[in-house]
Amino acid sequence: MGTENKVIKCKAAVAWEPGKPVSVEEVEVAPPKEHEVRIKIAASGVCHTDFTYLYDCGKGVQTRPFPLILGHEGSGVVESVGPGVTTVQPGDQVIPLFLPQCSECEFCLSPKTNLCYKNWRNTQQGVLADGTSRITCKGQQVYQFLGVSTFSEYTVVPEYNVAKIHQDAALDKVCLLGCGVATGYGAALNTAKVERGTACAVFGLGAVGLATVMGCKAAGASRIIGVEINAEKREVAKTFGVTDFVNPNDHNKPIQEVLMEMTGGGVDYSFECVGNVTLMRAVFESCKAAWGTCVIVGWNETDSLSLAPIDVLMGRTLKGTYFGGWKSVCSVPKLVEDYLSGRIMLDEFVTHTLPLEEVNHAFDLMTKGKSIRTVIKV
Amino acid sequence: MGTENKVIKCKAAVAWEPGKPVSVEEVEVAPPKEHEVRIKIAASGVCHTDFTYLYDCGKGVQTRPFPLILGHEGSGVVESVGPGVTTVQPGDQVIPLFLPQCSECEFCLSPKTNLCYKNWRNTQQGVLADGTSRITCKGQQVYQFLGVSTFSEYTVVPEYNVAKIHQDAALDKVCLLGCGVATGYGAALNTAKVERGTACAVFGLGAVGLATVMGCKAAGASRIIGVEINAEKREVAKTFGVTDFVNPNDHNKPIQEVLMEMTGGGVDYSFECVGNVTLMRAVFESCKAAWGTCVIVGWNETDSLSLAPIDVLMGRTLKGTYFGGWKSVCSVPKLVEDYLSGRIMLDEFVTHTLPLEEVNHAFDLMTKGKSIRTVIKV
Repeated sequence: MGTENKVIKCKAAVAWEPGKPVSVEEVEVAPPKEHEVRIKIAASGVCHTDFTYLYDCGKGVQTRPFPLILGHEGSGVVESVGPGVTTVQPGDQVIPLFLPQCSECEFCLSPKTNLCYKNWRNTQQGVLADGTSRITCKGQQVYQFLGVSTFSEYTVVPEYNVAKIHQDAALDKVCLLGCGVATGYGAALNTAKVERGTACAVFGLGAVGLATVMGCKAAGASRIIGVEINAEKREVAKTFGVTDFVNPNDHNKPIQEVLMEMTGGGVDYSFECVGNVTLMRAVFESCKAAWGTCVIVGWNETDSLSLAPIDVLMGRTLKGTYFGGWKSVCSVPKLVEDYLSGRIMLDEFVTHTLPLEEVNHAFDLMTKGKSIRTVIKV
Repeated sequence: MGTENKVIKCKAAVAWEPGKPVSVEEVEVAPPKEHEVRIKIAASGVCHTDFTYLYDCGKGVQTRPFPLILGHEGSGVVESVGPGVTTVQPGDQVIPLFLPQCSECEFCLSPKTNLCYKNWRNTQQGVLADGTSRITCKGQQVYQFLGVSTFSEYTVVPEYNVAKIHQDAALDKVCLLGCGVATGYGAALNTAKVERGTACAVFGLGAVGLATVMGCKAAGASRIIGVEINAEKREVAKTFGVTDFVNPNDHNKPIQEVLMEMTGGGVDYSFECVGNVTLMRAVFESCKAAWGTCVIVGWNETDSLSLAPIDVLMGRTLKGTYFGGWKSVCSVPKLVEDYLSGRIMLDEFVTHTLPLEEVNHAFDLMTKGKSIRTVIKV
């Protein structure tokens, strides 16, 4: 390609400081270094985590370095590769991943976890392996959110953070497998390991929650209770597999008591898909004594969660999930295949499609509960 | 026997009110009602839980009704049985159990739990199925701690709360399988399901903690770190299988950091055998991200435990155990066999043997850290 080894000037939605809208700017994207891949982004889902790190710094999340290009749920085509890259080549359809899979570290070598820690500290701080980002704007380094930055026409990520996917996959749909849908779906299948015929409760029916519902349904759960304060989610919840829609605002007792009564003692599996520590306790208490499992799916890195030890002693298990327990590079292509063969729904998550210039509008739709997922076509 | 169907007058150590020493009194033990068994108690371990419910009411445990006969880790011989009892007969060696196994309830029918809830609420309140106890003193009903009361020459328990054991078992040793040793041993084997070659950490090396160590060793753990502030436990800890003895008082940093450094990131399994919520957090944080499991073994029914959700999201699992996950009636006889065949140590737990008159002295030895288990010979 004519852009190989050259700096690419392109558009990106830059977040200059916390709490302020993003603005579309011309940025410069450097060529990929060794074991890095430069990707022409096609589409990106707008995830609640993007919003949180921009507007809610300090409320459940730490402030990351700014200026920052958000977006971590994208898809695109490889534009060029740096030295040593063997797994992808220019023209390949790919999904950039905030969770790597190096296949070499202690965690990658274990079947028990997907938490590869290759470059973890760097990518959490918005830089790549060498401690810098590949994107600048007006001469200033711009940090790459989770090492990714999909709200940009081009980005550069480490080779271990790229999943090569089917060439026919619709990039404006499969981008959702880069975060939200994979996370929720895997929370049910990999982390909870939901068993056939069981009762599940999913708290928070955003994209992650609905994907969790989809996972519970795929696992054969016989009852899936969706808990959500936005009454408008009732119909879409049913589409994904919710059998009982519960709005806490319709009840004048704690939601865990409501669920206990509905199920005669609690559900087999409960999922927190919001990231709120007060809700986490209610979700934990909603699962059944003796064998109930509660999975924390919602992100929260600063608050404290309070539990009664007696609820633990009485046989409940608390677990957490990150990227749904999927080993990223090898699993995402399979999830794409599952979408192509109709086993996973993706189209139904996409309620809005907007251009890069309208990321702020996408945040607005999200916080007002009007969208499930907005996909930004880059 | 000559006592069948008659009230038996005998000695028991009665706790008249919280915070006061027990006193040995003459009590009257009624004949067993339907599906009940009257047992001549031979021996009883003195468990920390007995002390806690007498002296620490409100500190981690709720106050139970008084007057009360404590003791819940005993052994004895069946004196007589009530109508309908088919599983034991007079003369059988038995261990009375605070956890029943009715073999009929939802929990008994599931392989996932041992938490039979037959008469749960009643026995927790110190009475049997009909809402009364079988023991009176000076004309007043005396409550049976956890429905058992082994600090008495005779007691009556429901049929579902009796394990018939080998006729040759030494009752002054196997009594420990009625609570502490079974709990710790099972916490490692049944609840954590410790795998061969792993690293474990056990916090608190009383009888339960040492039994947990024994369980970790039986499961093939390659490293067992014992954490205990009583330096005198070092040698006995090694006897049970501790490979590294750590005294938090020897370190000027949080104990979880000490363990992280010792193990390069945390242990595979950590066990809290104290019942202290502050310690529980440290124990949770001592297990490894990605796949570490923390098991709460220590009892606490009133406090709140605080955790960072990020530690959960990063792959740690929190579980609890009650009676070590053993289905009580069917498992305790097997544990007795394991003792008889040398697979389980019991003798090494018994540091003191005292008569019923010296229960208060046994409490004193325990709180001063002088004993592992005192066995009361009744």
